[in-house]
Amino acid sequence: MNCPVLHLQSTSSERWLTQVTENLDLLLIDHAHCEKKAAGVAMNMIFAYVENEDLCRAMTEIVNEELEHFHLVLELLHERGVRFCRIKPSKYGEQLHALVRKSEPERAVDRLLVAGLIEARSCERFGILRERLEDQRLANFYDQLFESEARHHSAYVRLAKQYADDATVMRRLEELAAMEAEIIAVGDENPRMHS
Amino acid sequence: MNCPVLHLQSTSSERWLTQVTENLDLLLIDHAHCEKKAAGVAMNMIFAYVENEDLCRAMTEIVNEELEHFHLVLELLHERGVRFCRIKPSKYGEQLHALVRKSEPERAVDRLLVAGLIEARSCERFGILRERLEDQRLANFYDQLFESEARHHSAYVRLAKQYADDATVMRRLEELAAMEAEIIAVGDENPRMHS
Ligand SMILES: [Fe+2]
Ligand SMILES: [Fe+2]
Ligand SMILES: [Fe+2]
Ligand SMILES: [Fe+2]
Repeated sequence: MNCPVLHLQSTSSERWLTQVTENLDLLLIDHAHCEKKAAGVAMNMIFAYVENEDLCRAMTEIVNEELEHFHLVLELLHERGVRFCRIKPSKYGEQLHALVRKSEPERAVDRLLVAGLIEARSCERFGILRERLEDQRLANFYDQLFESEARHHSAYVRLAKQYADDATVMRRLEELAAMEAEIIAVGDENPRMHS
Repeated sequence: MNCPVLHLQSTSSERWLTQVTENLDLLLIDHAHCEKKAAGVAMNMIFAYVENEDLCRAMTEIVNEELEHFHLVLELLHERGVRFCRIKPSKYGEQLHALVRKSEPERAVDRLLVAGLIEARSCERFGILRERLEDQRLANFYDQLFESEARHHSAYVRLAKQYADDATVMRRLEELAAMEAEIIAVGDENPRMHS
């Protein structure tokens, strides 16, 4: 799915799918942390751009939804009898955040677009998991989350356009998406949502 | 209201009430920031103590409610035609956070109790505002928020008891409340929720 709606420039590899289907419990633990981090990112946006009420409203909705997802994943871990714990995160988030420019308003554009790309990649991978996992309970779970991550992606791209004109934002989104595709192609030695 | 339910060791002064009733718009702008900060504190607890699912559930509820309060205050500012902006915060929060011990599990106890005391003081001051403000719209607004801040206070104290035995927590709460009373008595030169 080189899906234009998600602005991604690559499709996740079979390498990743094999890596995570052999380690589903670890994938789920990492997934719970990802939902928590997604909530944290949206909260940080409220602190950074608090004068932008439209942004604060959209971020509030995302905080709420990501925390709800976080608890849904925790429930699933319970069902599977897996104890939730801290694990080493993949390098993906950190590598993407390193691409954010330092001065405003470019910084706002980049932070929003990077957050939007992480949502897009999660969405793409949830789409693969819902279609390819043999465990139907898990497949349905990913089906259930798919749509809201797509919506989060759109919200972040829309908000970025408040900090630069549309063409500039779309050009930068293409640049960042190209770098995202390179980062995700390399992957991570540990099985993670973004390995 | 030297209210035992809230574990506060002082009642807010007339000095404070006079200071803020003469600067209601500034009070409201600061109040909006306080609600945002309360949401941020609860989110930080999730990151710091993510293995504690009970805590994560309680903090999720508080994040949601504080962000809702944040937007309610922004609406009120709209109604009054006041532009929301950044302002210098009072020194209250910083002074309280300086009391938090550095090593776990004492750190968890102190973070939770300090957050609980801030909720308690907000609650006490909302109680004064609902009774003493002439502006009925504003008085009703504070009446509406009063109960949930009291509930947040109880939640924080309850959770602190997961990191030390009850007697230890209550002794530390008394110590911290005594220091809180000293800090709030000095106040702040700028009219703020916690000045
Ligand atoms: Fe999510
Ligand atoms: Fe999301
Ligand atoms: Fe609140
Ligand atoms: Fe509160």
